[in-house]
Amino acid sequence: MTIAETTVFEALESNVRGYCRSWPTVFDTASGAWLTDENGKEYLDFFAGAGALNYGHNNPLFKQALIDYLLGDGITHALDMSTVAKRRLLEAMRDLVFIPRGLDYKVQFPGPTGANAVEAALKLARKVTGRTTILNFTNAFHGMTLGALSVTGNAAKRAGAGVPLVHATPMPYDGYLDEPEDLSWMRRALDDSSSGLDKPAAVIVETVQGEGGVNVARAEWLRHLAELCSARGILLIVDDVQMGCGRTGPFFSFEVAGITPDIVTLSKSIGGYGLPMALVLMRRDLDQWAPGEHNGTFRGNNAAFVTAEVALRHYWSDDRLQLATLAKGARVHDHLVALTESFTGISTRGRGLVHGLVFEDASQAEKVCQVAFEHGLLVETSGSSDEVVKLLPPLTVSDDEITHGLGILTRAVEIVRDGH
Amino acid sequence: MTIAETTVFEALESNVRGYCRSWPTVFDTASGAWLTDENGKEYLDFFAGAGALNYGHNNPLFKQALIDYLLGDGITHALDMSTVAKRRLLEAMRDLVFIPRGLDYKVQFPGPTGANAVEAALKLARKVTGRTTILNFTNAFHGMTLGALSVTGNAAKRAGAGVPLVHATPMPYDGYLDEPEDLSWMRRALDDSSSGLDKPAAVIVETVQGEGGVNVARAEWLRHLAELCSARGILLIVDDVQMGCGRTGPFFSFEVAGITPDIVTLSKSIGGYGLPMALVLMRRDLDQWAPGEHNGTFRGNNAAFVTAEVALRHYWSDDRLQLATLAKGARVHDHLVALTESFTGISTRGRGLVHGLVFEDASQAEKVCQVAFEHGLLVETSGSSDEVVKLLPPLTVSDDEITHGLGILTRAVEIVRDGH
Amino acid sequence: MTIAETTVFEALESNVRGYCRSWPTVFDTASGAWLTDENGKEYLDFFAGAGALNYGHNNPLFKQALIDYLLGDGITHALDMSTVAKRRLLEAMRDLVFIPRGLDYKVQFPGPTGANAVEAALKLARKVTGRTTILNFTNAFHGMTLGALSVTGNAAKRAGAGVPLVHATPMPYDGYLDEPEDLSWMRRALDDSSSGLDKPAAVIVETVQGEGGVNVARAEWLRHLAELCSARGILLIVDDVQMGCGRTGPFFSFEVAGITPDIVTLSKSIGGYGLPMALVLMRRDLDQWAPGEHNGTFRGNNAAFVTAEVALRHYWSDDRLQLATLAKGARVHDHLVALTESFTGISTRGRGLVHGLVFEDASQAEKVCQVAFEHGLLVETSGSSDEVVKLLPPLTVSDDEITHGLGILTRAVEIVRDGH
Amino acid sequence: MTIAETTVFEALESNVRGYCRSWPTVFDTASGAWLTDENGKEYLDFFAGAGALNYGHNNPLFKQALIDYLLGDGITHALDMSTVAKRRLLEAMRDLVFIPRGLDYKVQFPGPTGANAVEAALKLARKVTGRTTILNFTNAFHGMTLGALSVTGNAAKRAGAGVPLVHATPMPYDGYLDEPEDLSWMRRALDDSSSGLDKPAAVIVETVQGEGGVNVARAEWLRHLAELCSARGILLIVDDVQMGCGRTGPFFSFEVAGITPDIVTLSKSIGGYGLPMALVLMRRDLDQWAPGEHNGTFRGNNAAFVTAEVALRHYWSDDRLQLATLAKGARVHDHLVALTESFTGISTRGRGLVHGLVFEDASQAEKVCQVAFEHGLLVETSGSSDEVVKLLPPLTVSDDEITHGLGILTRAVEIVRDGH
Repeated sequence: MTIAETTVFEALESNVRGYCRSWPTVFDTASGAWLTDENGKEYLDFFAGAGALNYGHNNPLFKQALIDYLLGDGITHALDMSTVAKRRLLEAMRDLVFIPRGLDYKVQFPGPTGANAVEAALKLARKVTGRTTILNFTNAFHGMTLGALSVTGNAAKRAGAGVPLVHATPMPYDGYLDEPEDLSWMRRALDDSSSGLDKPAAVIVETVQGEGGVNVARAEWLRHLAELCSARGILLIVDDVQMGCGRTGPFFSFEVAGITPDIVTLSKSIGGYGLPMALVLMRRDLDQWAPGEHNGTFRGNNAAFVTAEVALRHYWSDDRLQLATLAKGARVHDHLVALTESFTGISTRGRGLVHGLVFEDASQAEKVCQVAFEHGLLVETSGSSDEVVKLLPPLTVSDDEITHGLGILTRAVEIVRDGH
Repeated sequence: MTIAETTVFEALESNVRGYCRSWPTVFDTASGAWLTDENGKEYLDFFAGAGALNYGHNNPLFKQALIDYLLGDGITHALDMSTVAKRRLLEAMRDLVFIPRGLDYKVQFPGPTGANAVEAALKLARKVTGRTTILNFTNAFHGMTLGALSVTGNAAKRAGAGVPLVHATPMPYDGYLDEPEDLSWMRRALDDSSSGLDKPAAVIVETVQGEGGVNVARAEWLRHLAELCSARGILLIVDDVQMGCGRTGPFFSFEVAGITPDIVTLSKSIGGYGLPMALVLMRRDLDQWAPGEHNGTFRGNNAAFVTAEVALRHYWSDDRLQLATLAKGARVHDHLVALTESFTGISTRGRGLVHGLVFEDASQAEKVCQVAFEHGLLVETSGSSDEVVKLLPPLTVSDDEITHGLGILTRAVEIVRDGH
Repeated sequence: MTIAETTVFEALESNVRGYCRSWPTVFDTASGAWLTDENGKEYLDFFAGAGALNYGHNNPLFKQALIDYLLGDGITHALDMSTVAKRRLLEAMRDLVFIPRGLDYKVQFPGPTGANAVEAALKLARKVTGRTTILNFTNAFHGMTLGALSVTGNAAKRAGAGVPLVHATPMPYDGYLDEPEDLSWMRRALDDSSSGLDKPAAVIVETVQGEGGVNVARAEWLRHLAELCSARGILLIVDDVQMGCGRTGPFFSFEVAGITPDIVTLSKSIGGYGLPMALVLMRRDLDQWAPGEHNGTFRGNNAAFVTAEVALRHYWSDDRLQLATLAKGARVHDHLVALTESFTGISTRGRGLVHGLVFEDASQAEKVCQVAFEHGLLVETSGSSDEVVKLLPPLTVSDDEITHGLGILTRAVEIVRDGH
Repeated sequence: MTIAETTVFEALESNVRGYCRSWPTVFDTASGAWLTDENGKEYLDFFAGAGALNYGHNNPLFKQALIDYLLGDGITHALDMSTVAKRRLLEAMRDLVFIPRGLDYKVQFPGPTGANAVEAALKLARKVTGRTTILNFTNAFHGMTLGALSVTGNAAKRAGAGVPLVHATPMPYDGYLDEPEDLSWMRRALDDSSSGLDKPAAVIVETVQGEGGVNVARAEWLRHLAELCSARGILLIVDDVQMGCGRTGPFFSFEVAGITPDIVTLSKSIGGYGLPMALVLMRRDLDQWAPGEHNGTFRGNNAAFVTAEVALRHYWSDDRLQLATLAKGARVHDHLVALTESFTGISTRGRGLVHGLVFEDASQAEKVCQVAFEHGLLVETSGSSDEVVKLLPPLTVSDDEITHGLGILTRAVEIVRDGH
């Protein structure tokens, strides 16, 4: 890549572009955990499409199914018409996701992005309860459309709204304050009719905050949160857009806590192949939508339904992926712990296959990512000060690839911290 | 299809589903202007994915390119990393869309839906101007996320928001009032510092309102609107999600008026193959985004970039498609005019290949669509009372297919109106 | 007055002060239609406390009653406890205002300002209907608190809110557009479920817009407005804060149209003596307030109740004041018409004893007020460009005083227009 | 009083009326700490017009000045014209309030109620900072207009708004949570750019929450709050409407903490005689109002200016009132402590001459007030569950009156708790 070659991006693409600045090359092909740029240089991917590629790039199982579907002129774009592909997907959801977990959810296709799913979930929660306020959490990330942005924490992104973001009140996430029980403020405010906190329609929560800095909520805290909501008639929305589809081990990230959210949002890896798709799952009695009350042109991306179904059938018919994820996660965790023992000012946290390396000196995290890129590893920062190097490899990453990636990461830390 | 076969849709899919109710069958494959259900019954498509399939279903040109890209492991999901596929698309936009029309736009990839594009456009307009109010038009449709919904007219869809929709003020669209010049109220209110209308950041307009009932703005009115905005420092956003990509003849629907909007939104057919994709085009000096200020996981749907580029290269290197669209549109128009002369209480309006058959008795429009479906034609209603049968065939529809479809439509009108 | 003497105002009083800039002297005493400054200079008052002094300054009838009440230690401050003074006022309202006019209103004491009354009226309308939107009119003025400001037209005052003012949509007032029937836009938008105008809780209107430039709504227009609201279940609020209490002749300004608003706000002259007081009148079935749901420390200003009752008993037991007001108004009108015939670029409009002299060259209106002040007459400008000299003498002004004031006004116009 | 006698209240006055329900009689006259109903029954006033009568009812010193002013035709209603009476008041504020305390405030006359003052303060804070969010506190009470209501805690009153109350976020007041330092959540959220808490324009706080249940903030907490605001460029607004004018001892309630708020609101007792009046005090450099940007018809209630000035000159030229208040407060406190030692389930808190008797069984508080009324003592409940009997006698109450009132209170507690 030379500057000349990137001219059209600089000349034509909006300044809003971001990742191309952190990773200044032009990518061409990708397979599994690897990307290749147009110069043939290969990069190991510990980023996984920000969580949209849990099954790796261009997973050959899904690719074949997709190509077969295309070759057979399977309907590609169908809005919310009934299709054969959608039926197969719904059946797979029922048989492989809902029934084994005892869940009685209805499924909404709200448009193909996580933000669409969050917007639909918030609308439904407000419609069903007749209330407007949503409680969200510090360092939450739920999307960039106006409704989703109102429950997102990042100040720079919020400022982009251009209007005051209202109807949402942030609450401290688990571990945010130095206290044993971080729900005390929420509980007290909810139970006091003069607290000034209007009774909310819903609470929206990520069980692990990926963009927010790999903040991990304890199972116990999630249970307390679910009980708090349930006892007061407040709906609990788990935004599992990034942490669902096996990222933390089980299919849903909330399974570890033994809770059943009222509404769940899924996107990113639900389509399997990185194709745009999203779902809203809701308790059956909450399905109070009128026909067409929420819609969207691309809510019937049948190409994604095909790969989504194959993903469910291949990876979620048994517990092999879940066990493998937990095992790989343990390996990553152990390596990171060792790293934090070698260097001061670094700590680590994570669950399943999402891990963060937290730098007291936030500027080092960005440098580590830069050096890693130069050495052929894609990792990005997260957290409110970009102080966390976030590790989000595909779940299908091999042990050797993990070893390779962690090696580059370790080398990058050494270079940043020791200067060589 | 039997009831038993649809069980999983009824049992699992949210009540929000809509088109599957109007067209109660299970579709399987599709090609060009035709869909086939699982029983082998064929339907001629005068709906075209609500405008997302201007080039027909599974267009073979695009299909081959897509399969080649998939087979070659071209990167599918890339957020806003630079990729070879994106470069090609940007070059095609530059060479085939911008340069020939003398446009100096920057291109934003805002997430893959029209609503994403509208949300980004509104955010940008507010950011750049520092104002919050948006003027929209009666019967407008711009999407279902909170920001897009606030500028959408339909009361039932607005009610779904669950919160008051604010920061937008509707203005009468061209022809809405029985007056020669429907901008008089807007002009007067803007020029009076005590009108109570806060100076808006932007005006958002569709040149033809598809969902709103195939309401066609005159070129003259659009010019007056553009002049009004320009003279007062108000940004003009043309939402060309449905009417762009050749639907009205030229690539952009506003070309007929000789205006240059400050911001343009594109989605639906821009991806060519019905794959989710959207663009925001903005005057170069308006590109005041900070990196990452608006983002979205699926903003780099490279599979769609591939088909989008092929679509541009194949259909927009010359004026053949445009001329063909206009010619086909004229045929449809003539036929509809003849129909309105045969039946009282019906009128027609349209431009290019979007036409409406307007029923004084709104209930007849829905009935005509039902009968048409039974006879193998997909058409849907639009308009605030669902009083308009909207004809939106693929631009690639053949003359014979037009003849066939209009024949079914005419038959359906006869059955509804004459009872046989 | 010298600069030295005003030091404490300049040094200590906020820059927000206004009238002291237009009328740069220090007032000391006042009686009837006259103010006297500390240097003994007298000013004839064609401003009347912005409509709060319809019965003149320190009306001796009310003064005696007030002093008697104070001397007798009548309770002064009582919130909404029942008091003898409040009972007398309620009885006077019932016997002299409601019964003669066939009105069945309940009476709320919402706090002692017009803005309090407007806020309470808006709250009640929203509570009763369950809707949020209010329709207001171009050039409306309803007050400076956040709710009242949202339905006020003036851009400079709106900007003072510091937050976007929402939930209100302005409509063209009678005569605003050059059309025979200015309700066509409102009617069309209300009757179209896709207009984007959410069904409003209420319409709030002044029958004559004093601050807005002495814009006079025709009785016919008010009737059409009332019918429009009634037919659609929208509440009609008449803000009679400035135009009530006889300003236009009858006690209520809407009597001329033969309509019965659902809610009426009164303040300014209702207290008689210029003491802070306000009322909300509401149709009996709309009185759905819970006890204490709206309150305010000074809602029981019993000193004002005493003077309010005397005002009602003295001035509204018969039709003498009303007839006198209309007669005086006719004199003022005739004089102003003559003035407009002597000078180009001036027109006049008004009703009862509120009249405006409208200057095509807005800057002249301010100059006329300045010259009038120098000659001993207090008049102020109004209108969105301050293009109107507003005449608002006490209703108790004598014929000689009218002659005197109009003489100064005419002289001021001559000086401004002819330079001498 | 019989039912027949109250007919006009029930028949005509809105259901919103409140105190007349708790105290079902018709009051006629009042003097000092005593009210007399129309049957001649006397009531000792430990309510003091909800804090508007710190100097007692119809204080003879003020009454004489007021009558003299009325007899002399002193201008009563003057908006914001300069007047002799206003000059005297400003001079008294300067000489007796500001200079002795080293304060450099400008003075705004925002309209005559506390809500007007709060609305003006919020508008100014937003204008000066360009931000929209306000932080308020649990159990806060600031008024009933839309802006003031948005920072008020009570859910029932908030519901009266009829629109979602936005742009305000509640924070835990001192002592709200069982933690040593209740600012930890606010501090953490303000310092984290991804907390989701938009940087606020201002914090608004009462130093003692009267309506909220006599919650007393520690001086140390107030200092920490002031430091937190100052360090982050957030304006600190102290709402001293109820706790100012000597209620807690010193003129301003915040003096005990040694802090200087950026903006202070005053109303209730500032007028001395219970006449409607309010002030906003602001740091000189914050006086960025444009002329007339906030206004209100009754902002120049000169009758109140006269009594306000006499009150300042008589009571605040030395520290006698302050010392007397503290001494009386100590007596009340001691008595209440003794009471809590005699009865379980009761506690007490307060400062200066505002005290609360807190009942674990909230229903007993209301009963105590009822029994007290029957025995000739006016006290009301406060707190989110009405669990607190609030003692708010005039500051001018005599020692004998205190003894008498506390005797009735004690008797009422005995009757409620022991049944006799």
